[in-house]
Amino acid sequence: MAINYNSAIELALSSIKAEGRYRTFADITRLAGNFPKATLHNSKDKKEITVWCSNDYLGMGQNLKVLKGIEKALYLVGAGSGGTRNISGTTHYHVELEKELSLLHQKESSLLFTSGYVANEAALSTLSKLIPGLVILSDENNHASMIAGIRNGRARKVVFKHNDLIDLRLKLSELGEDIPKIIVFESVYSMDGDIAPIKEICDLADEYNALTYIDEVHAVGLYGNHGGGIAEKENQLSRLDIIEGTLAKGYGLVGGYISAKANIVDAIRSYAPGFIFTTSLPPALVAGAIESVKHLKYSKIEREIMHANVSYLKQSLISNELPVIKNNSHIIPLLIGDPVLTKKVTDQLLELYSIYVQPINYPTVPKGTERLRITPNPSHTREDMDFLVKSLNSLWELMDLSRAA
Amino acid sequence: MAINYNSAIELALSSIKAEGRYRTFADITRLAGNFPKATLHNSKDKKEITVWCSNDYLGMGQNLKVLKGIEKALYLVGAGSGGTRNISGTTHYHVELEKELSLLHQKESSLLFTSGYVANEAALSTLSKLIPGLVILSDENNHASMIAGIRNGRARKVVFKHNDLIDLRLKLSELGEDIPKIIVFESVYSMDGDIAPIKEICDLADEYNALTYIDEVHAVGLYGNHGGGIAEKENQLSRLDIIEGTLAKGYGLVGGYISAKANIVDAIRSYAPGFIFTTSLPPALVAGAIESVKHLKYSKIEREIMHANVSYLKQSLISNELPVIKNNSHIIPLLIGDPVLTKKVTDQLLELYSIYVQPINYPTVPKGTERLRITPNPSHTREDMDFLVKSLNSLWELMDLSRAA
Repeated sequence: MAINYNSAIELALSSIKAEGRYRTFADITRLAGNFPKATLHNSKDKKEITVWCSNDYLGMGQNLKVLKGIEKALYLVGAGSGGTRNISGTTHYHVELEKELSLLHQKESSLLFTSGYVANEAALSTLSKLIPGLVILSDENNHASMIAGIRNGRARKVVFKHNDLIDLRLKLSELGEDIPKIIVFESVYSMDGDIAPIKEICDLADEYNALTYIDEVHAVGLYGNHGGGIAEKENQLSRLDIIEGTLAKGYGLVGGYISAKANIVDAIRSYAPGFIFTTSLPPALVAGAIESVKHLKYSKIEREIMHANVSYLKQSLISNELPVIKNNSHIIPLLIGDPVLTKKVTDQLLELYSIYVQPINYPTVPKGTERLRITPNPSHTREDMDFLVKSLNSLWELMDLSRAA
Repeated sequence: MAINYNSAIELALSSIKAEGRYRTFADITRLAGNFPKATLHNSKDKKEITVWCSNDYLGMGQNLKVLKGIEKALYLVGAGSGGTRNISGTTHYHVELEKELSLLHQKESSLLFTSGYVANEAALSTLSKLIPGLVILSDENNHASMIAGIRNGRARKVVFKHNDLIDLRLKLSELGEDIPKIIVFESVYSMDGDIAPIKEICDLADEYNALTYIDEVHAVGLYGNHGGGIAEKENQLSRLDIIEGTLAKGYGLVGGYISAKANIVDAIRSYAPGFIFTTSLPPALVAGAIESVKHLKYSKIEREIMHANVSYLKQSLISNELPVIKNNSHIIPLLIGDPVLTKKVTDQLLELYSIYVQPINYPTVPKGTERLRITPNPSHTREDMDFLVKSLNSLWELMDLSRAA
């Protein structure tokens, strides 16, 4: 045969393996009512582990109101929605959740997508088509889903340095007045946990007449008096044109959304293939999301305990000279800087201490910045945290890893 | 201000409205245990309607085994998965369902995605990168998600005429031996309901050493002795390199997947951003999908009643000279050919007869081919069907619509 397809595929796989970044998924089931405990199925003998890398940041995935809400809707309306939003797949739960999200973000309208990834991809690629000549100013650390949306929309992209207001101003001023522009950025950056200067970015947007698009997926439910994210916390909600969020992290479920002015949402609803041509979210999960969003609007206890745990653990890691990447969020990255070593640390954590932290490697973070990413949630106890620090300390000792400078 | 963003958005919306294809979503909740009945919430007074346009083709969304499976897993492991597949989001349910799907399609391996749209987008765009110089031969009627995947992968695309073996052969022969190629097509085309000549396409693939990629989303669960789709029914499973399917239609849930040789699946798993950077499907829904796939492997009654209903209804529509677009599948399109008229028919059906059929317009079908798309399922009764035909007949009379030639 002239063409050997198999060798192309094998080549792609072997290059990943050679770099030590071939991914093995931990096969786990968390134990509802007993988070952060889970059962690990990978080895022949199942064992109980403690999960330290979940994005169910507030444990809402085991909240009884949420579970009951899902169960109730399940027996009322069934499992799947049975259609796209246009063709029989809009249920009253979808309509209600969209209203709830609009209230949360103080916007006129909201739109659900099957995931946060799809929300970003669909919204950004469609905005590029709706606004002729649009230039997208994109933070260099933006998430893969935003990069995909920008790339697929094929508008002109100008990348500005991460969280760098001077560079953003420079890029804005170079574009000139007559060019439509949108600044696209995140509030909490997932892998470093640092936070964008939202107010100052909005000031620049005003000055240069640019639209603003913020990704709050690692912040909704977690920050702000009602869980409305960093923008709520910093009183910037009204200054952001489009807020993108997720139901799959702080809210413990699945799905993504945008909130914005009614006509922007309506135009994306009407033009985005990633919204139009896909089955809508299962109504029962949407019902669970309504419970979760409503609960975190008024209940502060989950946020408070989580943030207290984060402070305690960060402080403890730092005082043990473990290489914490510092930030002001709930995400605790520990830098290792090598994919093989990172994998070895996480394998040992699981093997020796039944602690599950997934190694984070390329393409999720840049090569050379491989790390552990630790996410305390309200269900981690003081003992869990002390045991984690002790275990990490022992491994750092044993493997002679670099300490914090 | 130099730029008026609002007028760009308004312009985009007004052009859709001017064409009469602005979409209004029916706000409905189906009644589990009582499909195809649903409650319509749009008007001030709720009313009970009969749904005639759901893609929950076999009513598995109300199957009690499925609902119990979801409920059980919900209270065992919680609501959302809490992470990407790599970072704590692989549960044992995901692993089991992938095994089940591999058995169904007689492939070495399978991979779940958050939707069928994402499965197509991610798999096709990634294949373009994995196989240097790949040329994609794409049926001209392929679904938007496949077009997105092909477009985003930026490989060379050659479109062949719909289901046209002569044109496909011509295009293959023009490419020559040394160019890697993949033929991308569907088994059942959603909006016309016609079926691809799978065997003959595979013959051509063999002759020209091309890979094959088939989308079976409107066929899995519905065709073949075990619900393995048209490829199973026609004994072609082993000849297809990649089979893409959904859990959101015949199986009544949500999510998409591919099944293929282990290294192809592994490479897509390792390289596709749309797979890597997104929260995995909720474990409870995956548990429900396991029940659904296993059930339809052995239970034939749902398929049999559905196909019997389709035959009865098609025959009845045809003998009433209603303009059925003929095909050999379970999908019954009724051609109207104008967006405003189509909307008027569906509004009247709902208003006068409490029958819900969503109007199908551009971009879901080409302009000028606007239609009703009717999908009988096992829960429609003889009375439901007779009443539908009678109601359509009255409207065709009243509105003086074109009859079948």
